[in-house]
Amino acid sequence: MTGRLIHYNTLATLMKGGFDGTFSFEEVLKNGGIGIGTVDRLDGELVILNHRGYRFDVNGQIHEVRPQDTTPYAAVIDFNAENQVTLNEKIDKDTLEENMSKYFSSKNVFQAVKLHGTFQKIKCRSVQKQEKPYPDLAEVAKDQAEFTAEDMTGTLVGIYTPELFGMISATGFHLHFISDDHSFGGHVLGFEIEQPMIKWQTVDTVEQKFPIDNETFMKTDFDYSSVLADIEEAE
Amino acid sequence: MTGRLIHYNTLATLMKGGFDGTFSFEEVLKNGGIGIGTVDRLDGELVILNHRGYRFDVNGQIHEVRPQDTTPYAAVIDFNAENQVTLNEKIDKDTLEENMSKYFSSKNVFQAVKLHGTFQKIKCRSVQKQEKPYPDLAEVAKDQAEFTAEDMTGTLVGIYTPELFGMISATGFHLHFISDDHSFGGHVLGFEIEQPMIKWQTVDTVEQKFPIDNETFMKTDFDYSSVLADIEEAE
Repeated sequence: MTGRLIHYNTLATLMKGGFDGTFSFEEVLKNGGIGIGTVDRLDGELVILNHRGYRFDVNGQIHEVRPQDTTPYAAVIDFNAENQVTLNEKIDKDTLEENMSKYFSSKNVFQAVKLHGTFQKIKCRSVQKQEKPYPDLAEVAKDQAEFTAEDMTGTLVGIYTPELFGMISATGFHLHFISDDHSFGGHVLGFEIEQPMIKWQTVDTVEQKFPIDNETFMKTDFDYSSVLADIEEAE
Repeated sequence: MTGRLIHYNTLATLMKGGFDGTFSFEEVLKNGGIGIGTVDRLDGELVILNHRGYRFDVNGQIHEVRPQDTTPYAAVIDFNAENQVTLNEKIDKDTLEENMSKYFSSKNVFQAVKLHGTFQKIKCRSVQKQEKPYPDLAEVAKDQAEFTAEDMTGTLVGIYTPELFGMISATGFHLHFISDDHSFGGHVLGFEIEQPMIKWQTVDTVEQKFPIDNETFMKTDFDYSSVLADIEEAE
């Protein structure tokens, strides 16, 4: 079964301070079995699991999002894993891509991934809620809060993005985490896990949504010249 | 009424020699009231108008595409113009963008455009059908056939692409032409028209389709490093 990934706006616009929530979670969660992103005013890191949305704020506290809450950027998919593999080794964030490229049908398309297990180490970050005028995300990320845990059981969800779409998403893996007990999560900076079982789904269609009713987005003259470098540094 | 633009694969992959037809016109024409693109093996320039597809071959001859024919790249939309404007001056390809940016709701989203009228001058190009191993499109374009006409009545159709999507489509206007009498058309290199009436539609959703059943596409290690420069030169 192939998948339809939905992008609510782009990572590039988020990088350039597009932090106002422009899509309701009522819409986003309807379409999203799993997903990653953030919320209005960058008030934490978003993890979507089983059509429910959770944000981890800058203090590491979890909050379930409400239908009327909004997001400036999210990538979601009604996940139906078509493939799974158990890797017979310990992997970390850097070796995940290397390992998965052996199994993926292609590096030229998006792939959705989900990994549930007990992580020997995991490191997440979250960010501070912002007020206008918004800075670039690269600036915000300099003051990010980082959290580490050991022997933490939970779910990694995320998207593998092909190189060509590195301005729209982030080339390679973009992963968020939520622990089973909801005590720990956020944007994943690193992890170690032994012999993980990884599920993934090949994406044949990406639906790119633009917030055409948001006047700020429509009228802003974005300077995207530094975005690829900023994504590499901040994501 | 907002629009849903459908991209069948990307311009970048076409630029890098992805010339095998991977989507049937049965599917493409169902979704496309207007559109641009090419056909299997780059055998001409594609114009879609009123859900019918026409290709202009390298000799300038028109051929209507059949449902079983295929395309490696097309951008189509079920066009329902929400806006129109009559410009009170003579415009050319270079001044079109400058003029339209005054009227467009935004330069940050895709816009579909359609312009029917009598062109004082119009210049189109087409390309030679290719055989494997395929060269880059930039190489093919060096031998393109160019056609010019005066006082030609017909329809320009095309897409305005925001900067962020310059690898997926081509930043700015990408226009194809078909004359009312079907004697002239192709990829538009230049034109002049007095006081044109231009219709356009703002795109809120782009559906990006990938040919996941095409093994060549899935397995090829594309080098996209020169694509932006190639698009600027060839398109």
